[in-house]
Amino acid sequence: MTKMKKLINDPLKVADELVQGLVDAYNGECKLVGARSIVKTDIPDGKVALLVGGGSGHEPIYHGLVGRNLADGAACGDIFAAPPPNIVFEATEEVDKGKGVLYLYGNYAGDVMNFDIGAELSDDEDIEVETVLICDDVCSAPPTEKGKRRGVAGLVPIVKLAGAASQTAGSLQELAAVAQKASLQTRSVGVSMTPGSIPATGKPTFEIDEDKIGLGMGIHGEPGVAEIPMASADELVPKMLDLLVEDFEKDEDVAALAEGDEVVLFVNSLGATTMMELLIGLKIAKAYLEERGVKIYDTIVGPLVTCQEMSGISFSVTRLDDELKPLWDMPCQSVCYSKMEGRYGA
Amino acid sequence: MTKMKKLINDPLKVADELVQGLVDAYNGECKLVGARSIVKTDIPDGKVALLVGGGSGHEPIYHGLVGRNLADGAACGDIFAAPPPNIVFEATEEVDKGKGVLYLYGNYAGDVMNFDIGAELSDDEDIEVETVLICDDVCSAPPTEKGKRRGVAGLVPIVKLAGAASQTAGSLQELAAVAQKASLQTRSVGVSMTPGSIPATGKPTFEIDEDKIGLGMGIHGEPGVAEIPMASADELVPKMLDLLVEDFEKDEDVAALAEGDEVVLFVNSLGATTMMELLIGLKIAKAYLEERGVKIYDTIVGPLVTCQEMSGISFSVTRLDDELKPLWDMPCQSVCYSKMEGRYGA
Repeated sequence: MTKMKKLINDPLKVADELVQGLVDAYNGECKLVGARSIVKTDIPDGKVALLVGGGSGHEPIYHGLVGRNLADGAACGDIFAAPPPNIVFEATEEVDKGKGVLYLYGNYAGDVMNFDIGAELSDDEDIEVETVLICDDVCSAPPTEKGKRRGVAGLVPIVKLAGAASQTAGSLQELAAVAQKASLQTRSVGVSMTPGSIPATGKPTFEIDEDKIGLGMGIHGEPGVAEIPMASADELVPKMLDLLVEDFEKDEDVAALAEGDEVVLFVNSLGATTMMELLIGLKIAKAYLEERGVKIYDTIVGPLVTCQEMSGISFSVTRLDDELKPLWDMPCQSVCYSKMEGRYGA
Repeated sequence: MTKMKKLINDPLKVADELVQGLVDAYNGECKLVGARSIVKTDIPDGKVALLVGGGSGHEPIYHGLVGRNLADGAACGDIFAAPPPNIVFEATEEVDKGKGVLYLYGNYAGDVMNFDIGAELSDDEDIEVETVLICDDVCSAPPTEKGKRRGVAGLVPIVKLAGAASQTAGSLQELAAVAQKASLQTRSVGVSMTPGSIPATGKPTFEIDEDKIGLGMGIHGEPGVAEIPMASADELVPKMLDLLVEDFEKDEDVAALAEGDEVVLFVNSLGATTMMELLIGLKIAKAYLEERGVKIYDTIVGPLVTCQEMSGISFSVTRLDDELKPLWDMPCQSVCYSKMEGRYGA
């Protein structure tokens, strides 16, 4: 019941109002375009453009990843809904500077359908579009069917890397290749503990027993690996990371995580899970990876991929190579994720 | 009940574990010192040092503000408890590089007592200490008794400015003067909607009726201006900002907020309040300030000053002058707040 105390106005207009608020946060650096897109105001001519997007209600993603050395624009859907094709097209038209547009977004049926139609509409206007889907949730399909996986928290490091690459990419295909590599090398696993509530109705996004948590449950409450009893951090985190390590092992398209590999470790809160918990989880995950000889290149920690006041935590690992490392080191700035040049500890 | 699903181990050791996790997040850039302090590993000799601190459980503050161009170290208390004097002293000894240490922390009785004893212990070792208290919560005392006010979200912009100043400050007194100015020009107002829960007991941090919110309530549930009915964002936000504007007007130590003033606007979540709500609040606050001719120099938005999964929102305004603006523009990096050089929209 108390979850309904949301500071909003008309519950049916929250998406429009929050996107306006996001534009306001950027203080002139971004503008509202068409029905509900946000686009940078200073995209240079001849730049290969990067477009993200997805449903609202998961802030600071997806639209909060528009920024410096990040995405050039975002097509924003209503709460938990894919952006309609016209919104995708309006965003595409605005970010295109003659070198084409990479669509980079999470793999959900509605998003795929609408972005694909947006790409067709763009093609009619001679705007070249390529698409890379984010499919990082290892619990939503086996490695042999990676293309069916949902996109979850991994989109933050993937968009960060692609945004950096887009600053100097010579062609759309070159940018797509980097995004594809970052996507392939990024895997996530999450648990959900309590639901968020839908702004328009106050209803919970899913139901789960008081003493259970959803291992591998999706960010809207989609089915995962299992409902398991709530456990201590020391018990649960290694169990979650085992799924990540096994996935790299079983997937024939990538090498197993091996001694000497360098990864970005991203510990995400689904909303109400506290930074206290994230930090405790990070401590366990770092020890787990280092025990296997895997080096932490850099860390991200925070509630960046959320579903309202849902509680839950996810761990994402992105393996870097010599091409991706300098892209990671590039500074970036946005409402979702910002960093100075370099990385922690170097 | 569901609030007890926290991903922790021993509830009595959460503070120690989360501080270790914070050190791990910094990946070698910070180290654990003494009983529970975190200190940068690369403080240059001869630098005037900046030390923050306070109770744990409010992450990413206070200790998450240790970082590049930010604080050099933090003395960390147990959950919602001031750091004991020995922890303050251990942190002081480690950050001191011969030019003295500025203590910059929120005004709570326990913190003041322990940091003061820490300063005495440091004086015994010939370490010079100055203290600037953060007292930004306008609802906790009238302007004539500002020294009694609690420190809340305003500490983020204040530490950001002081951290920048500390990079080049010629003396401890010079740094203290900048921190004092930033503190005087920063005011915050908040509302609380639902409590967080205490990790060790699962008990709520305060109680409030289902249909009421606490206007000006402190971040642990301390009394504010009034309990008022839950309202829409359009109704509530201007009411909150009126309190800020009135406070600048009534305080004889500062000028009223006037046309042409430039401010950093910081919209903070106390924990479970979503970024969706923060962005809607930011939109209203920006329009409110601009209507009065006040310019937004830059924005911060996010759950940075929290009390576990408490829900609530606060607005902080920091007025900048020609001395503070270049300090604001300096990049910074930490688990709590990072930015590239410059500011949004410029």
